[in-house]
Amino acid sequence: MTTIDGAAPAQTTPAQTTPAQTTPGQARAQFRAGLRRPTSGYSAGYAQVNLIAVPQQQAFDMLLFAQRNPKSCPVLGVLEAGQYSSELLSGGDIRTDIPAYRVYRHGELVDEPDEVTAVWREDLVAFLIGCSFTFEAPLLEAGLPVAHLEQGRNVPMYVTDRPCQPAGTLSGPLVVSMRPFPPESIAAAVRITSRYPGVHGAPVHIGAPEQLGITDLQNPDFGSPVDIPQGWTPVFWACGVTPQAAVMHSAPELAISHAPGHMLITDLPNSQLQVP
Amino acid sequence: MTTIDGAAPAQTTPAQTTPAQTTPGQARAQFRAGLRRPTSGYSAGYAQVNLIAVPQQQAFDMLLFAQRNPKSCPVLGVLEAGQYSSELLSGGDIRTDIPAYRVYRHGELVDEPDEVTAVWREDLVAFLIGCSFTFEAPLLEAGLPVAHLEQGRNVPMYVTDRPCQPAGTLSGPLVVSMRPFPPESIAAAVRITSRYPGVHGAPVHIGAPEQLGITDLQNPDFGSPVDIPQGWTPVFWACGVTPQAAVMHSAPELAISHAPGHMLITDLPNSQLQVP
Repeated sequence: MTTIDGAAPAQTTPAQTTPAQTTPGQARAQFRAGLRRPTSGYSAGYAQVNLIAVPQQQAFDMLLFAQRNPKSCPVLGVLEAGQYSSELLSGGDIRTDIPAYRVYRHGELVDEPDEVTAVWREDLVAFLIGCSFTFEAPLLEAGLPVAHLEQGRNVPMYVTDRPCQPAGTLSGPLVVSMRPFPPESIAAAVRITSRYPGVHGAPVHIGAPEQLGITDLQNPDFGSPVDIPQGWTPVFWACGVTPQAAVMHSAPELAISHAPGHMLITDLPNSQLQVP
Repeated sequence: MTTIDGAAPAQTTPAQTTPAQTTPGQARAQFRAGLRRPTSGYSAGYAQVNLIAVPQQQAFDMLLFAQRNPKSCPVLGVLEAGQYSSELLSGGDIRTDIPAYRVYRHGELVDEPDEVTAVWREDLVAFLIGCSFTFEAPLLEAGLPVAHLEQGRNVPMYVTDRPCQPAGTLSGPLVVSMRPFPPESIAAAVRITSRYPGVHGAPVHIGAPEQLGITDLQNPDFGSPVDIPQGWTPVFWACGVTPQAAVMHSAPELAISHAPGHMLITDLPNSQLQVP
């Protein structure tokens, strides 16, 4: 094997594992060791989740908020108060195994650390909420383009003007992620993602971003803008950053979350989330 | 129009509305007025739900129990503490609109009244949990036999030896409902019901009742036994009586539920519960 210019390749060890080939356990270990980057494309075939942890006093409201807003907040796991591991992440630790975190105090973002062991408290209840990165693998398998992956960027996310159903002390707007598709692929994107209700399922909105109160697709509230090829349509899925928007809006004393796009990768195979 | 023996029909007013044709509002009014009977077959096309109401102190545990046991406890609504109506039952009252209730104190069944207004408390949080009666209409539409309806009986329900995932103070066994099907119809029954995860979805067990710890199909723990035609197989679905079994096992101070098989009929069309 030679490279284009005829030189020997730099090394002859086996080709490096790609992010998609990285196992969930390996990915968590890399992020625990300090790697800080979005997780889209990692560990193909395994579910990625959003983290939101709040004090026990707000736990019922958060669980009820999730129950009332199942498109944006599909709960895949709830840990006991103070607990930071789960059978969904063998040997893992939710305080360290995410590439980047956000710490909110009274609704204000006060820090974006690499790990949160020092901030962790015995009374925190952690919710693991399905993430749409999970269904990107079946989209790719079906031959559909995932623009932000092709462009090497985080997915763009937008705060909409659509209010969620409130629950007790918690309320806030729906947050959506956006992936553009060419006209002939939109139906397949709907069909495929609708089989994964546990990771947001079917889109909530197709085209017409202004009807969600989104004025500039190139200026997302979280993540990165993506280039939208001429003639493609923006397709919007409910997003697991929605609980963070509720935290910003409702200002509980403390909340810890992942940084948008920087997810917790679980051992849960996508196949277990699929409905017929 | 004449009857078979040639006599004039007893009355010439329009034929009486069948239970299946009764609207949800009409059905609730009949039960509010005192009609006491199982609701299987009522208001075809509209979702029926289980009720479990517990004091606010146990509400988080109950919601978490439901989240951890989604096959048996698919939550379709949670009312605010003390609230007894909901947009799922226009003009209705969950304290009166169910044909029969059960009142549990410290895990003991103490009463089976027709209404519970006198027992209701301001701190009770009511959970509305999907019921498998909902998917009987699509089973019938597909030409499948529903034995307990044909035999004019309540569905048989069994306490299994399979433990639910516990949540805080709540634990208990899985309860299942059973419908027998002929061999050529089982696949269709699976396919059709799996499209309704909000009302228990696909069966949890097909055949082999002894593997669920069920020793005598003719002796159900709730509901009525049904005759199983020779060569038919018993098919088991997770059942919304499971929270009642948890209440009996874990003995919270007070709990109010429907009587098994005597459901709350909602205004929610089945079509809104269908996944592709």
